[in-house]
Amino acid sequence: MLDLLIELGNLKRLPRTGWLLRGVPNPESIADHSYRVALITLFLADELKKRGVEVNVERALKIALLHDIGEARITDVPKTAQHYLDKGKAERRAVMELLLASPMPGEYFKLWREYEEETSLEGKLVKFADRLEMLIQAFEYEKAGFQNLDEFWGALDSLRESEFYEHFGELVEGLVAMRKQKRLR
Amino acid sequence: MLDLLIELGNLKRLPRTGWLLRGVPNPESIADHSYRVALITLFLADELKKRGVEVNVERALKIALLHDIGEARITDVPKTAQHYLDKGKAERRAVMELLLASPMPGEYFKLWREYEEETSLEGKLVKFADRLEMLIQAFEYEKAGFQNLDEFWGALDSLRESEFYEHFGELVEGLVAMRKQKRLR
Amino acid sequence: MLDLLIELGNLKRLPRTGWLLRGVPNPESIADHSYRVALITLFLADELKKRGVEVNVERALKIALLHDIGEARITDVPKTAQHYLDKGKAERRAVMELLLASPMPGEYFKLWREYEEETSLEGKLVKFADRLEMLIQAFEYEKAGFQNLDEFWGALDSLRESEFYEHFGELVEGLVAMRKQKRLR
Amino acid sequence: MLDLLIELGNLKRLPRTGWLLRGVPNPESIADHSYRVALITLFLADELKKRGVEVNVERALKIALLHDIGEARITDVPKTAQHYLDKGKAERRAVMELLLASPMPGEYFKLWREYEEETSLEGKLVKFADRLEMLIQAFEYEKAGFQNLDEFWGALDSLRESEFYEHFGELVEGLVAMRKQKRLR
Amino acid sequence: MLDLLIELGNLKRLPRTGWLLRGVPNPESIADHSYRVALITLFLADELKKRGVEVNVERALKIALLHDIGEARITDVPKTAQHYLDKGKAERRAVMELLLASPMPGEYFKLWREYEEETSLEGKLVKFADRLEMLIQAFEYEKAGFQNLDEFWGALDSLRESEFYEHFGELVEGLVAMRKQKRLR
Amino acid sequence: MLDLLIELGNLKRLPRTGWLLRGVPNPESIADHSYRVALITLFLADELKKRGVEVNVERALKIALLHDIGEARITDVPKTAQHYLDKGKAERRAVMELLLASPMPGEYFKLWREYEEETSLEGKLVKFADRLEMLIQAFEYEKAGFQNLDEFWGALDSLRESEFYEHFGELVEGLVAMRKQKRLR
Repeated sequence: MLDLLIELGNLKRLPRTGWLLRGVPNPESIADHSYRVALITLFLADELKKRGVEVNVERALKIALLHDIGEARITDVPKTAQHYLDKGKAERRAVMELLLASPMPGEYFKLWREYEEETSLEGKLVKFADRLEMLIQAFEYEKAGFQNLDEFWGALDSLRESEFYEHFGELVEGLVAMRKQKRLR
Repeated sequence: MLDLLIELGNLKRLPRTGWLLRGVPNPESIADHSYRVALITLFLADELKKRGVEVNVERALKIALLHDIGEARITDVPKTAQHYLDKGKAERRAVMELLLASPMPGEYFKLWREYEEETSLEGKLVKFADRLEMLIQAFEYEKAGFQNLDEFWGALDSLRESEFYEHFGELVEGLVAMRKQKRLR
Repeated sequence: MLDLLIELGNLKRLPRTGWLLRGVPNPESIADHSYRVALITLFLADELKKRGVEVNVERALKIALLHDIGEARITDVPKTAQHYLDKGKAERRAVMELLLASPMPGEYFKLWREYEEETSLEGKLVKFADRLEMLIQAFEYEKAGFQNLDEFWGALDSLRESEFYEHFGELVEGLVAMRKQKRLR
Repeated sequence: MLDLLIELGNLKRLPRTGWLLRGVPNPESIADHSYRVALITLFLADELKKRGVEVNVERALKIALLHDIGEARITDVPKTAQHYLDKGKAERRAVMELLLASPMPGEYFKLWREYEEETSLEGKLVKFADRLEMLIQAFEYEKAGFQNLDEFWGALDSLRESEFYEHFGELVEGLVAMRKQKRLR
Repeated sequence: MLDLLIELGNLKRLPRTGWLLRGVPNPESIADHSYRVALITLFLADELKKRGVEVNVERALKIALLHDIGEARITDVPKTAQHYLDKGKAERRAVMELLLASPMPGEYFKLWREYEEETSLEGKLVKFADRLEMLIQAFEYEKAGFQNLDEFWGALDSLRESEFYEHFGELVEGLVAMRKQKRLR
Repeated sequence: MLDLLIELGNLKRLPRTGWLLRGVPNPESIADHSYRVALITLFLADELKKRGVEVNVERALKIALLHDIGEARITDVPKTAQHYLDKGKAERRAVMELLLASPMPGEYFKLWREYEEETSLEGKLVKFADRLEMLIQAFEYEKAGFQNLDEFWGALDSLRESEFYEHFGELVEGLVAMRKQKRLR
């Protein structure tokens, strides 16, 4: 397991290439991103529970923590590359092999697939959190003065079409409003 | 809640000052650290469960994710500063106020205190994971060529005295052995 | 004294957290800031003298060089943290202890307090230079494209109310005018 | 062609992941590497010519400049990832599509393949220069204090088996000797 | 020659000071710039040839690769400094001495002078490519949000007056149009 | 004067090239260096005074603050470049012109020359502080793991031959001893 923990340290060293390619110097790491995805998942899952939605918070958190670990081997291969190679397939195999050294390879891999294929409520919730986190980060970079990030906001559509929009539409639209306000100034 | 999520983004931007002060350029962020603490907590908690120890994985993961959020307001005030100011007290209040905008302020704060005061098995486990994570990172920096990190290895004592050492002594000593081997070369 | 000189090297490694938290990557160090504060102090003090104001340039320069040395132990704890901890008190004690290894602990500490408590003309002048330096830096970051720095410009009020505004109002308003001009483009 | 020139700017922004994953902070870019590969190719090709070897310098330089352009879309996917995805195939297609906007798509792609498949003297020479460049960089990082780069020196074997070793063995062994000398100190 | 190759590695480490002085953090290296100059030279030279202009592509590429190597010793001394020192003369001598360890000192130096003095078609072409590269980079920084780069666009005049404008005016004006479009948003 | 203060901000942005060229990533700025030179000057001057040496502290501090301001225009042109250009002459003129916008051009320039030509006790003291600062920084980088800095330690000779060695030999040899101790480990 020690080797696994060391290898997962790659996620701290590897930049999120989407920002890098658009000219943000020293952008966040994959671990930076995954951490806030997990925090968002925590808050959203507990909020859903408060509202009477049956959601397994433990499962959701596990999925959030594991959702990008394949990138410790694959790196954050950007969209432009995915036209040429099957990132999904590569990641699936990398995740499976990485997890062999973990306490519950089968269980964790099952959870990871729920995210990848959006086949469980918890898997879908993490996808929602993943996109929301990216947009919050895009907003933060824009607030700091960076531009050229419009493309990312296309993810708004997925958020608005999600079943969680009913519950968290206010969060999403609040972000959109803050962005608009910033642009008017 | 949106403001909270944005404020927690500070954890991505703030460096871990321990490394910075010892001359590591562009060291990991607080979020980088917290992310691997959560991963370690996940693996250790599930391993304990497999071995028949009763541990609440959900609680443990929540504690791991929340354990350093106070630093979004306090920053990673280093040891040298704690001689002059009561970081514990400041962090406690900052965590409490930060969480007001979260779905479960009281519950989360209770969890945070379990970590801070090591009053539950899960709280103690995250402390163990927190120290182990730091040592793994120290090892990685040393492996890359950085020196001047001996001080951090004092945390070995706490790990060895922990009740989890019985279960994870191999992990701890494995790391020590890898370090020794590296130094011999 | 050697240990002191080495410890003061921390000021080169520690970022000014105000910029960092607002998204400026790799912002200036505390030493960077202190250096220009000292240069500004030099120019303003000599200018005052030319105009017949009795100012002790040597004292002023010493204050400027020492004004932030406490941060070598405390770090640049940001405003958000000062709500939770008494930075002033911590810094006072840190400065006192740091200076023990210097040639004139009592004298230097007295000078530092003149700055902190604004109890001498020279102490007040360095406070003026400290704020002016910060605004010049804010302007430079804005000129380079960074945004989100409006908050800092609140310091204009203190500059305008200062007794030195009579002499250096042109400097202050010149900066404000350059900023406005930049924004119009 | 303008879009192509802008897209090739990605090579300046993208880090060489081999160094990054081994803990070198802010390592060289892909463009940094490609530039010295081209310089090495220039010197070796002209040296070969002086020695009576028939080599087409123009072709060699073109190959050197183009050899990594696929990474503008694919990024520098590291060895660990190539176990899971067919980088060669992806790069081939990316290079082909990128070059569509260039003045001589067919000709350039043919040259690129000579490198990739080592089917011409010039293609083989650039492969030799590519490996030599990497080792010189490894040496420079080691000289600066970085460790953990042993793995890269496996490329020595390919250099020693190359047909160019006959001519440039002195360069290769000179580097090895400098490394040994450094390690003895 | 090994020493020369190592020394040329300086070009990877040295920042282009024009960007640095205007507040771009971690700007491109001299090698980054030289690499794209060489790529642009390649494409323009081959395009010219297609159009029936007699241009020696090999010579052009050599010039592009060598045009800034003097900066490995001189560094990228900015405009503000050139008012006080004769960069041209210094660079000339540095280039001459650097090349002594290369396979063709005389030949390469002759090529370098064709660039410096714009005395051959190929030398002029690299000058054109050098300026165009700088403007593309300025555009990329502006697109990412950086400002304060207006000064660089003065180079447009040289591009428009060049004999290559007849062939590549579309490239130049395309860039200008993209810039204008960006500014309107 | 505002323009001057802004231009002196260059000293924060410009790296000390000696470290950069030897592979230290993101090394200290010129302002970082100048700041500690001024602090060292302060402590040494006051110590000398305590010991009965007649030294003008105010003059010494002014010299320390001004000693490298010419680099705001010239940049930190490294040793390798000074073989090809007359940095001293360039700096002298740049300093003179920069100071035109300061309150006391003639007086400050006179002070700067005392440093450059080592013609006053205070000028010599700042030279001593300048070299000592560099060695302390070299030691700090070596302590952090960086190597390849032996060359800098040649400055020890100048320190040992200085008239201030009588007073501060302990500081110098203390540093040498700490370095030796570090190397033994």
